[in-house]
Amino acid sequence: MKIGFIGTGIMGRPMALNLIKAGHELLTWGRRFDTVEPLLVAGAMGKGTPAEVAASAEICFTVVSGTSDVEQVILGERGLVHGVKPGSVIVDMSTIAPSATRRIAAQLEVRGVDMLDAPVSGGQAGATQGTLSIMAGGKTEVFERVKPLFEIMGKNIVHVGDHGAGQVVKACNQIVVSLTLQGVAEAILLARKNGVDPTKMREALLDGYAGSKILEVHGLRMMNADYKPGFKVKLHHKDLGIVLDNASENHVPLPGTAIVAQQIEALMEAGDAELDSAAIMLALERLAG
Amino acid sequence: MKIGFIGTGIMGRPMALNLIKAGHELLTWGRRFDTVEPLLVAGAMGKGTPAEVAASAEICFTVVSGTSDVEQVILGERGLVHGVKPGSVIVDMSTIAPSATRRIAAQLEVRGVDMLDAPVSGGQAGATQGTLSIMAGGKTEVFERVKPLFEIMGKNIVHVGDHGAGQVVKACNQIVVSLTLQGVAEAILLARKNGVDPTKMREALLDGYAGSKILEVHGLRMMNADYKPGFKVKLHHKDLGIVLDNASENHVPLPGTAIVAQQIEALMEAGDAELDSAAIMLALERLAG
Repeated sequence: MKIGFIGTGIMGRPMALNLIKAGHELLTWGRRFDTVEPLLVAGAMGKGTPAEVAASAEICFTVVSGTSDVEQVILGERGLVHGVKPGSVIVDMSTIAPSATRRIAAQLEVRGVDMLDAPVSGGQAGATQGTLSIMAGGKTEVFERVKPLFEIMGKNIVHVGDHGAGQVVKACNQIVVSLTLQGVAEAILLARKNGVDPTKMREALLDGYAGSKILEVHGLRMMNADYKPGFKVKLHHKDLGIVLDNASENHVPLPGTAIVAQQIEALMEAGDAELDSAAIMLALERLAG
Repeated sequence: MKIGFIGTGIMGRPMALNLIKAGHELLTWGRRFDTVEPLLVAGAMGKGTPAEVAASAEICFTVVSGTSDVEQVILGERGLVHGVKPGSVIVDMSTIAPSATRRIAAQLEVRGVDMLDAPVSGGQAGATQGTLSIMAGGKTEVFERVKPLFEIMGKNIVHVGDHGAGQVVKACNQIVVSLTLQGVAEAILLARKNGVDPTKMREALLDGYAGSKILEVHGLRMMNADYKPGFKVKLHHKDLGIVLDNASENHVPLPGTAIVAQQIEALMEAGDAELDSAAIMLALERLAG
């Protein structure tokens, strides 16, 4: 199938490569040549604008950073919307505000173009191995149409509701991840200050009710002070902004998430935007003095 | 082996029954006959005081509620200490303050009696199935001596350090559990207020970085407003008291844990002490109005 793919960063590139490996014909565009090059080497065709990509593709994926990037790439001057054919689908796999997704979907619908919001979880490793969790919002028939492509990029693929629901579920994902990170960091700190080996603590907790993927993976990073990303603090910061904005729009109190957001703010202020978000441990250590 | 066992509540009773099933000779005592009766029916021998239990047993287990109960049963007027033979071991599997455990261990050591603190995680189900996580503090050789008995009651058994380390790790366990519960509750609330089905949300999150035992088990309880215990709010309240006291003694800031403790306080105040601690969802819903 002819597939448009825009966004060739830490997540998008391995996702696009998996589509090429599965035999699909990829069309791509990027602001900088060096980010697009690995895809061209793998056989993708480069185009001059997002609009040109859309003109030749049946389904277009976007995996960029924030709400404004998605709006630019889809609705901007040379955006997908100016080339896209009625009956085709735009699938945004970035993490953006649910309200923005709904707005973009409405604008595309007017032109006979379907949209899915399909943010992912699972990090660079999941993107490379094709084992991402994909949480998709939009019409059921559109989800079914794109599903075979999702199955190339991910493993746990769930249609969670109408437009925006994918982004809401991704927000929920970031809430749970944030608070679990905070819990693991606080536990490590308490163990250390009591002279107890955090490695033993993690070992004792992993199989019980305190067990989680975060304790397993990020717990180890925290203990080793290994903050090489992974998922960067600046993206966690962006995502918690989306979460708290949505919570505010909907009058939802999130006292726990707000505490974690403060730790992330402290990391941003300290110049640690490029570290892995397991650096919540570092923020807590600084607080502890 | 002749084993003393004191504490036949929701956790202690199934643990004791597993020891009897494994062929051990149990000696027990309880304040109320009805709590001890199921053990007597299963073949345990009842004694008139904890001291009498200790006099006939090689290893004595205590599984009671709080720090004062443990002190009473071990050091009190008719406590284990007044019957216990030098060379025997007292294993406290209750969840109490690490500092209290160290104090008791020191008092027993003077009389030639060894102690282990070995609190558990895994709830009533884990106690019944013999699949508890057991986190033990104390001397290595004493741990090795008791280990075969731990293996009858639990599955993941870790010697985490010296006296008190077991209680510290249990405190860490409660921190991680608390914040994960809070995260799952906040995620469910955000999903609902956005009109997204929390069931789909949970399904999408379980296999990714947000995945945890708490999301799996307590997430379901929260969605179904099923607050039948399980692990009661009043015990969670007691345990977070231990955590925050220890944190205060050691000057450890636990901002996330403190937030959850406030939700638990609200539940206690509302008369929900007997509900399962998944009722953190209920506290959050009330906050949301």
